[in-house]
Amino acid sequence: MELISQHGCYGGAQRFYRHDSVAIGLPMRFSVYLPPQAQAGARVPVLFYLAGLTCTEETFMIKAGAQRFAAEHGVMLVAPDTSPRGAGLPGEADAWDFGVGAGFYLDATEAPWQKHWRMESYVAEELFELVTSALPGDAARAGIFGHSMGGHGALVLAQRHPQRFRSVSAFAPIAAPSRCPWGEKAFTGYLGSDRAAWAQHDASELMARQQAAPFPAGILVDQGLDDQFLQSQLHPDAFAAACQAVGQPLTLRRHSGYDHGYYFITSFIADHIRHHAAQL
Amino acid sequence: MELISQHGCYGGAQRFYRHDSVAIGLPMRFSVYLPPQAQAGARVPVLFYLAGLTCTEETFMIKAGAQRFAAEHGVMLVAPDTSPRGAGLPGEADAWDFGVGAGFYLDATEAPWQKHWRMESYVAEELFELVTSALPGDAARAGIFGHSMGGHGALVLAQRHPQRFRSVSAFAPIAAPSRCPWGEKAFTGYLGSDRAAWAQHDASELMARQQAAPFPAGILVDQGLDDQFLQSQLHPDAFAAACQAVGQPLTLRRHSGYDHGYYFITSFIADHIRHHAAQL
Repeated sequence: MELISQHGCYGGAQRFYRHDSVAIGLPMRFSVYLPPQAQAGARVPVLFYLAGLTCTEETFMIKAGAQRFAAEHGVMLVAPDTSPRGAGLPGEADAWDFGVGAGFYLDATEAPWQKHWRMESYVAEELFELVTSALPGDAARAGIFGHSMGGHGALVLAQRHPQRFRSVSAFAPIAAPSRCPWGEKAFTGYLGSDRAAWAQHDASELMARQQAAPFPAGILVDQGLDDQFLQSQLHPDAFAAACQAVGQPLTLRRHSGYDHGYYFITSFIADHIRHHAAQL
Repeated sequence: MELISQHGCYGGAQRFYRHDSVAIGLPMRFSVYLPPQAQAGARVPVLFYLAGLTCTEETFMIKAGAQRFAAEHGVMLVAPDTSPRGAGLPGEADAWDFGVGAGFYLDATEAPWQKHWRMESYVAEELFELVTSALPGDAARAGIFGHSMGGHGALVLAQRHPQRFRSVSAFAPIAAPSRCPWGEKAFTGYLGSDRAAWAQHDASELMARQQAAPFPAGILVDQGLDDQFLQSQLHPDAFAAACQAVGQPLTLRRHSGYDHGYYFITSFIADHIRHHAAQL
């Protein structure tokens, strides 16, 4: 684990790391914000942020303005990259919504992606263990959130790894990927044509199959009503219906005047950090 | 004045504009944050932010996290680009510290720069008038701040246009450009070799020649002590000495652990917005 850079930020430290990932089989980068409480020696709650299509480990730390609130609540932030890079697979960077920058936080089963595109194992196992051992994240107090493709990732990984992630929220998530163009393209490419396999990586399908509310303290989702992808790609209603059916408390806030970008995210980031801090 | 894009942000509007600038003789871009109070119809204090070398009108709005506090205090934010673009002068983009992205907020007198590189007239006259007429900035309640080259710009323009700018602050400003490599290169190229002309655009020299404190309510300057440019380029002590000699109240805060970047700026942005709001 190599420290690429460190920057003072709100009394804590903004860091960027590179390491050779076993799960991915390639070098990966991630970013960490250590709040002042961690700098002072405490083990602290850790909140994983999963970014959207085309983003990197840097996007959230630059644009969301989260560090102020992470410092206030004593929460460590961790943001991985959005896919493997440098695999050299044919066509891996030809599209902005598949391949590089578009890992969809799952382990691919289809060739040629299955060798490196293993973002679920990377985030939920390898990176989780790294930041709760080599860094002062408390493995017993971890939450996960994300935006768009990363909102999908957060809602799915939280349900698939409830022993890891004890709180979850999302900004404008791809909430029912099996039934939108981004999700259909990604799932077909990474998982093949068997829709039963897709259901295991679809937040709404997973929730519909829960026997009981997996997060009884509640899930928070924010959605802008001027979001250009809302109608075609996001389907928050499907996730809300699944939550209602299983009795999963969900706060789904719809905000007029807000779009899909980080000016939307930064406007509500404080509420998300508070949501997780209260549950961790 | 053409609206390029608009994004909901903290209950207000983040906007990007393009217009044909008379002062520059080329199209220019700038960004505006309108707080909720302006959206509701009020004329509000307006705070100009000048960015550093290589930046654009977008940098501050993406990275500083200022909108939250501008919304809280009801202040409008305006950020111009850092130079003309598209002039097509020979070598204009060969260096990152001169020419494109490096306008130094002055009106050049040397060929070939004198035709377009007129950033002082642009910011202090044309843009000032535009955002206080076509937009709801209150011309009687305007302040100015900036970072690095833009910190130089803020401290200089505030002193050269005290009837325009009633409050001023800076992050890691180039506080004595006549005696640092960045400033010597820029002033030689834009103003020629006459150091008497340089002094008219040097914050410390201007302050040293004031007859009385130009900003009796005080100037705020933040400086990181891990700033890689502190020793060679910034010289905050020269500005502090000039302020002391003329009785200009200056709060110069030195922060260990902070570098020259936006993780430093965002850590202290709230104090700067508050500083201006209190004086406007």
